[in-house]
This record gives sequence, structure tokens and C-alpha cells, in this order.
Amino acid sequence: MESKLTTISYEAIREMDANDPLKAFREKFYVPEGVLYFDGNSLGALPKGVEARLGEAVRQEWGNGLIRSWIGAGWYDMPRRLGDKIGRLVGAKPGQVVVADSTSVNLFKVLAAALKLQVGKSVILSEPDNFPTDLYMAQGLVELLGSAHELRLKWAEEIIDAIDTQTAVVMLTHVNYRTGWMHDMKAITKRAHEMGALVIWDLAHSAGAMPVELDDVEADFAIGCGYKYLNGGPGAPAFVYVAERHQARFSQPLAGWMGHAQPFSFEWKYEPAEGISRYLAGTQAVLSMTALECGVDVMLEADLQAMREKSLVMSDLFMRLVEEQCKGYDLKLVTPTEREQRGSQVCLSHPEGYAMMQALIARGVIGDFRAPDILRFGFTPLYVGYEDIWKAVGILAEILETRAWDNAAFKARAKVT
Amino acid sequence: MESKLTTISYEAIREMDANDPLKAFREKFYVPEGVLYFDGNSLGALPKGVEARLGEAVRQEWGNGLIRSWIGAGWYDMPRRLGDKIGRLVGAKPGQVVVADSTSVNLFKVLAAALKLQVGKSVILSEPDNFPTDLYMAQGLVELLGSAHELRLKWAEEIIDAIDTQTAVVMLTHVNYRTGWMHDMKAITKRAHEMGALVIWDLAHSAGAMPVELDDVEADFAIGCGYKYLNGGPGAPAFVYVAERHQARFSQPLAGWMGHAQPFSFEWKYEPAEGISRYLAGTQAVLSMTALECGVDVMLEADLQAMREKSLVMSDLFMRLVEEQCKGYDLKLVTPTEREQRGSQVCLSHPEGYAMMQALIARGVIGDFRAPDILRFGFTPLYVGYEDIWKAVGILAEILETRAWDNAAFKARAKVT
Repeated sequence: MESKLTTISYEAIREMDANDPLKAFREKFYVPEGVLYFDGNSLGALPKGVEARLGEAVRQEWGNGLIRSWIGAGWYDMPRRLGDKIGRLVGAKPGQVVVADSTSVNLFKVLAAALKLQVGKSVILSEPDNFPTDLYMAQGLVELLGSAHELRLKWAEEIIDAIDTQTAVVMLTHVNYRTGWMHDMKAITKRAHEMGALVIWDLAHSAGAMPVELDDVEADFAIGCGYKYLNGGPGAPAFVYVAERHQARFSQPLAGWMGHAQPFSFEWKYEPAEGISRYLAGTQAVLSMTALECGVDVMLEADLQAMREKSLVMSDLFMRLVEEQCKGYDLKLVTPTEREQRGSQVCLSHPEGYAMMQALIARGVIGDFRAPDILRFGFTPLYVGYEDIWKAVGILAEILETRAWDNAAFKARAKVT
Repeated sequence: MESKLTTISYEAIREMDANDPLKAFREKFYVPEGVLYFDGNSLGALPKGVEARLGEAVRQEWGNGLIRSWIGAGWYDMPRRLGDKIGRLVGAKPGQVVVADSTSVNLFKVLAAALKLQVGKSVILSEPDNFPTDLYMAQGLVELLGSAHELRLKWAEEIIDAIDTQTAVVMLTHVNYRTGWMHDMKAITKRAHEMGALVIWDLAHSAGAMPVELDDVEADFAIGCGYKYLNGGPGAPAFVYVAERHQARFSQPLAGWMGHAQPFSFEWKYEPAEGISRYLAGTQAVLSMTALECGVDVMLEADLQAMREKSLVMSDLFMRLVEEQCKGYDLKLVTPTEREQRGSQVCLSHPEGYAMMQALIARGVIGDFRAPDILRFGFTPLYVGYEDIWKAVGILAEILETRAWDNAAFKARAKVT
């Protein structure tokens, strides 16, 4: 990284915060004292309303309402009601999104549905650097089917040309979890349809981070995560989008009672519900959905275009400051600098990336590490400000200069990572 | 029902409560004023510790710990840690149970695994009156496989003789959700193994209601529900048991990243974790699991034999009082009177069962209705007492006598039922 930019002053940065049209949102989230949080793309920060709302759900809805709350407190309709709210964040008109299960399980549902629709086509096209769980679920499905389907992996840049008449499904994450690279959703969907392929978009790193227009690009299927940019809490339930035109064409294989046309008739024979409800399986985790609704409600108050703009300015600023202040330490920029090619994160690589991230975390700068060598910084416009970025890069520069990362404690990896 | 029993006095019933060895547990649950709760088999009552624990999880673990809590607060190991706790309630030694997903989704995992193991056998044997979601998931799997598998349904009494060499899997709910009939787990498992079949036990109505001995009966697979007798809250995550001897034999198809051997290596190729962890799919709903842990922790303090004994005495008492006080109103007992043939519920049928249950609920007696004509009363020994039963039957008798159920408001069914 060579510096091509002039220095930006601390005063100018404070001015940017003062003029931030989204600054009022910072009050709606809790970020602990002494923490600079750049990991909202892994676990979103806590909306301040969650504790009270969850307390009410526990005390009033569960404690007092007991079983009656399935209707009385709206638990039964929650997957659809909350789904429609998320729909507003991803450009889906009502009746096309439900909240249910995990992103992985939802991928299985729509991939199985899509393959069933695509008789005679054998290729599931994805990238080797897609988020692994998507690839794993596809492998699990192909193995289960014992069929001739092939999971074909091409690098991001090669995807659009690799779509051909054998492609049954293109399965991509809109914004790459590791590099921050963003696919052109419209162009890829269009190309796929021209070739007779269907597309599954994983919105884990875009829903709630930027405007997404599923209906407009004529998306087929999408899935997404509740605990990243939607701030729904650890392991929050996920969502699934199925374009209205596909809903009646196939009932997905995880055919649980909540997706039945008449769940309380207790018939032995499965008959799928009309519409998006057939993408429900079992009973949903109401308390976790309640927390997710708080996160989504805050998001619905924000202007997504303004969020996207702020996110891009933040990541531009971060890249610029890193370029100015962290030269000469083997740090490489992984994320594209072109705005239309990146999501809401910036990734740097360094051979000692793991230890370096531990050193940052010890100093209160929380990002995350992604194997093999990536330091990942997520920019969540509702609760991160420009001064946070200034401070974080200052700390990173200091860690590089003092080699604070070169420490056995920081190099020792925990069992799970 | 003809009365063959002598009348029991109110004083005798109060004495039974006074001598109840489990009476101290009533203080650990919140049951609202004016409610007699017989629906803990649909949604368990609220353990008093949940609100504070969940508040702490929100404030401290999510709010302050943020992403660090995956290790720091033990979120990452929670499915296994909580699974081992549930294992103690169902007779499973450690390393065979994980908490994950819903009962429906877990059924899909183990049924797919079981069918894969059973090459050359084509029959999934169950009963038409099994809880519908189990039957639906089996239908979804068979349709997905496009295979020659057949879901063969036999009535409960006929199951054991229907197991033959073509039986791949026997898939049963231990205690029937509608009638309360309890299968002989040991005899059926033994017979199945003699015929080369595997058995999946759904413990939705037995885990936490009575001692279950999965290891002892040499069970193959089991699944169960967190929100009934385990008091885990609305839509609490479910659990899945896989006998150690089967764990390495097949990796289930919902092959998500949390079931990978090294989830944080982010390899593109799926490699199942050792042991029960491979039955995890996506990221689990931590807040809902946290509430479930409170319920399970209370359960672990109780003696399961004492709970079973109290449950049987309660249901004996209920049947006896109904027989004495509700004669001549077309009410039929559906649940077997033999102790070894029933679970922890008593079901009555009546042509106007739906309206009658609404009339009961309006008077504070909460049971539930199961189509077509069943009034279901669950007996949860930790927070229901003998006097509650006395009062409830008194109210039922009054409703029958005054025909309070014969009311348009009670007969009007809500959309979902």
C-alpha cells in the first residue's frame, strides 16, 4: 500500500461525527466503555431496548400468558410478521420472508427446493471462498440425494462467465465474509435467468448493512442472518426469502408442522401451507425472535441509503488512515477499494494476523480474525463513529510499531479457532 | 365410566399436598394468580430464575462481552454442555446429547442418518397418531430422496408385531401427545434390534416427566423438546441423542459449520466433527438456550422417580374425581388407566370438547384441546398440587352441569386451530 493521500486531521474527523445524520442512533445501542467495536458484522451490538422487552416477554407473555400467548401475544404469527419487517430491509414486498431456524438450515430448504425445480441440470455453482456453512450444507444435500449433482467452485470474478445451461443453481453470498468483495446481484441474477439457472443469495453480510433490492433484481431465493447487521443477539434466528412466483412450485423437504396448511388439525398427511409459511419447519425460538425484533425495529427507523453512504465513508477513512499510519509493516489490503465492489467491512492480511488481532482486542479494538491471515473490521453505521476509526487505527499503528503482537499469549490460539 | 371408587375428601387432598416431597419446587416456578395450569406438557411454566438470568445474559454477556462471549461466556460449548445436562434426565451418559434446532429438524437429521445406515430396508414404521410433525418430516425426507422408502403406519398396539426384516426405522413418540398412551421403550427397541431395525424415540412428552433410560434400553436415536416438561420457554431449542456406537457411522445431511471438525478453519470441504457435535448445523439461539438451561437446572434438582410417582398419583386422582363428579355427561376417558401404559397426562373426549376447553380456560383451568374432540390435562409434578386438581375437577363438573360450554363465544374457533 503506497500512500497517495494527504493527511486528514483529528478536527476534521470530529466534524464528520458532528455532522453525521445518523448520530442519534448511537444512543440506541449499548457499547461498553473502552471498547471500539468493529465486529458488528459477526455479532451486532446490543440495542438498549432488548433487556426491558425480553423481561416483559418472559414475565408477561410466558409467565402470565402461558400457552395463551401463542395467540394473545402474537407468537404464532411472529415468523411472518417479523419476516415482513425484514422484507422492508431487503426490498421484498410482504409475504415473501419468514424468520426461522438458522441460516444453514434455511439454505438447505431453498437449495433442495431449487434443485427439485431444476430437473435435468446438475451444477450448483458457488465460490471456494463462500462462507463455509453454505458449501457444507450443499455437500450434505448432494450426499443425501446420492445424485449426480456437482458443487462447482469458481473464484468470484469467474462466476458470471461460469454460468451455463448445466447450472441448476448459483449459490453465492452477496458480500464475501472474508474479503468484503461484493457481487453484482443484478447482473449475476440476470445472467443466471438467461441460462435457466436459479440464484440463492446469502445476505448475511448485506441485510441491514446497505439497501438490497430482492424484488427489483428478480431474485429467486435469499437467506440471511439475524445476529450480524440486524443486531438480533447471539445466534438469533435467521430468515428466508422465496419470491412469490416460486412459492407454490415446490414444498421444501423440512416439512414440519408449522409449515402445514392446518397445523392444529393434526392430520397425519403433510399438506404445505400457502405462501411463504411452508418454509417454516418446527416451533420457533420465541425469546430469541423477540430480541431480534428489537434489533430490526431500530434498523427500520434508519435510512438505508444514509447507512450505506456512512459505511462507505467510514471504510474509505479506515483504508486511508491505515495507508498513512501503518506503512511498512507487511499489512496488505484485501478488500476492493472500489465502492461498488465492497460491502461494509475492510480486511487486511498479515502473516501474524491472529496475534495482531489478539493484541488489538487486548487494547479494546474488537475486530475479528479469519483464517488464514485476515484481520477483519466491520463498519456498522448506527453505532460506530469516525472518531472510533481514528482511535482504532492509532492503536493499530502503535501495535505495529512496538510489535506488541509478538507475544506468546497473543499467539496461542484457543481450541475452537 | 362407572364409579367404582369411594369418595375422597378435601381434607385428605390437603394432606397429600402437605406430605408432598416435591412441594418445595412450587416456589421455584411462577404460576399466575387464579390459574390452575394443566398445560405444562405444551408450554412449561416459568422458572423464577429466568428473568434475572436472561437479563444478565443480555447485559453482561451480549452487551459487555460482545463477540468475546462465544468463548468467555461459554456460548460455543453450550449445545454440548446443556446436552449433557439433559442427558442426565434421559439416561444418557455424556457426549451423546446436543441441544440444537427444533425437534422437527432434529428428527430429519437422525432419520436421514438412520436410513443411510439401513441399506436395503425400505420401511419407516410409525403410528398414524404420532405427533404430526414427525410424520411430516418423514414424508418430506422420503419425497426428497425420491426413493422407495415407505412410511408405514400402524396403531400403537400393533407396532411391535409389525416390525419385520423390511423395517429400516421404527419412529415413535414414547408418550402419545393426544391419548397419553406410553410405549414400552425397552420391548420395542429390543424387538427392533432383533429384526435389524433402528429406533428413533421422540421424548417430547417424557423427557423431564419421568425417568427415561436411553443407554439402558440400548436406544439408537432420540429427539426431544425443550419447552414442555423441561420448562425452557416458548419455542425453546430441542435436543438430539445419538448413541455413541452410531456417531461415527454417518454424518447427518444438515452439515452446517457448527458440526464441522474445525469450524474456525473455514475450509471449503465438510469434515464432520467427532462425536455428537456433528449433529449441530448452524449457529444456535443462545438467548433461548439460556432460558432452557434455567428450566433444566431446576429439573436436575428433582428426583425423577419421585416426580413420576407424584405424576401418577395426580393423574389417578384426576381420573377418580372425574369419574365421581362428572358422570352422565358423555365424557370419555381416553388415557389408559394402567400406570405403565401412560405418561404424565390424562385425556378425556367429548363431542363439544373444543367449547368445553374454552369454558375451562375462561374459568382459569388451562389445559388444551387436541382435534377432533380431546380435552388434554398435563400433570407437571414440580408446580401442580393435589388441591389444584380438586379445584379443577370441581370447575369441570360445574361447567358440565350448567352447560357453560354451550356458548357461541366458546364454540368459535380461532383461525389457527
